[in-house]
Amino acid sequence: MTTQQLVSEIRKKKSFLCIGLDVDLNKIPAHLLQEEDPIFAFNKSIIDATHHLCVAYKPNTAFYEAYGIKGWKSLEKTINYLNEKHPEIFTIADAKRGDIGNTSTMYAKAFFEDLAFDSVTVAPYMGKDSVEPFLAFKNKHTIMLALTSNQGAFDFQTLSVNNKELYKEVLEVSKSWNNSQNLMYVVGATKVEYLADIRKIIPESFLLVPGVGAQGGSLQEVCKYGMTDTIGLLINSSRGIIYASNKEDFAEAAATKAEELQSQMGSILK
Amino acid sequence: MTTQQLVSEIRKKKSFLCIGLDVDLNKIPAHLLQEEDPIFAFNKSIIDATHHLCVAYKPNTAFYEAYGIKGWKSLEKTINYLNEKHPEIFTIADAKRGDIGNTSTMYAKAFFEDLAFDSVTVAPYMGKDSVEPFLAFKNKHTIMLALTSNQGAFDFQTLSVNNKELYKEVLEVSKSWNNSQNLMYVVGATKVEYLADIRKIIPESFLLVPGVGAQGGSLQEVCKYGMTDTIGLLINSSRGIIYASNKEDFAEAAATKAEELQSQMGSILK
Repeated sequence: MTTQQLVSEIRKKKSFLCIGLDVDLNKIPAHLLQEEDPIFAFNKSIIDATHHLCVAYKPNTAFYEAYGIKGWKSLEKTINYLNEKHPEIFTIADAKRGDIGNTSTMYAKAFFEDLAFDSVTVAPYMGKDSVEPFLAFKNKHTIMLALTSNQGAFDFQTLSVNNKELYKEVLEVSKSWNNSQNLMYVVGATKVEYLADIRKIIPESFLLVPGVGAQGGSLQEVCKYGMTDTIGLLINSSRGIIYASNKEDFAEAAATKAEELQSQMGSILK
Repeated sequence: MTTQQLVSEIRKKKSFLCIGLDVDLNKIPAHLLQEEDPIFAFNKSIIDATHHLCVAYKPNTAFYEAYGIKGWKSLEKTINYLNEKHPEIFTIADAKRGDIGNTSTMYAKAFFEDLAFDSVTVAPYMGKDSVEPFLAFKNKHTIMLALTSNQGAFDFQTLSVNNKELYKEVLEVSKSWNNSQNLMYVVGATKVEYLADIRKIIPESFLLVPGVGAQGGSLQEVCKYGMTDTIGLLINSSRGIIYASNKEDFAEAAATKAEELQSQMGSILK
């Protein structure tokens, strides 16, 4: 998917919502556990109930890997279902990968070719030659960690290097990498006061923003400082939507929560 | 496996060699492609031929994920084979994971419980709360990236923060984390001149050292600056051993290459 197609979907749906599919068997409604593939059954219901309210879905690979081959099958069924039923929706493999060159190429093939995701999240610590193999894929997007939403973000990401915080150096340096037009960045909503500075470095890139809702970030504040002429934001909500109810009405409850966010986004986009 | 057990194996085998199982279907002998599971068939032959020469095996998960569910099955069969036939061998899931707390816990379960590896590699960028969930597992080891063997290591890892290079800050700070006794670190053999400084910060921790051989690092130099009273080193070689031949004699050729390294290690341990 091209960035233009993503922006066009956002305008059509009046939504820049991304729903995180972080499925934990201990948290889904009990009646689903009798299904042959409870994780996929849960995802399918959530997707069927919310696809008109969001522009992206983001399974975090950890939640699938934790269930071994069964989990990997559920992930494959989920991405295949999305690509078949809703090809207009942007898909994100939240995998936070990164390795030396030939190994990163293997990861890129896993997520872009084998699973056919539109994008994958990567970690910056190993530098340019660990990220460029992902950037080489046409019409695929590489979403690099910049400033994450957790407390540990302050351990290294905000340390001062070259008279600026490390995450700013990461943003700045990455602009010079081959095919950097395929980069997006993770910036947590819990650090909204940093967004104005971030936009000085990357005025147009899309940001994937976790931390609205459950982790305390404000949608209005994120948009005030982070939104661009072509939107430039994907706001992720996971637990706040998919676990809105753990009863038989879980999908409707998820839709209600997604609609609340979509409606706020609709007002902001006016 | 405890660190003491690992050290005892090293002394017994006179080897601190780790063999990287980075299996690429384009590089393995053609006759194996007719097997039902060529990746596992390759790994089994390599393990059967080399297990007496090394103390650790390290599959890099990227090479398995690239083949989807089939690849994940090959990884599972490989770790099960190792745990069944050679429980004394230290196993490393080279996965370079790291995420917010509850998600890192899912990754830790995937590698320590579902797949029963002894250790997993992690990336430090997201800080303390992204690594501590791994450290909480008893007799499991978390191998954190410090100074990697690739060129991109110089993009961020060696930038100056708090009057020292970032990787030194990572080493220093990580010592204060809960259960930090379960930490080991990745330090590339291509940066051997840094090892003396690293040992000042972490005098006793085990280092996983890639980059000897194919990437140009010297075994003697690594040992001179990195070895401790309890060894403290695992030297990894992947391509140099497993792809020593791509003909029917590939396992014997791998054993020959492994024996060369083991023999050098034997001399050093005297």
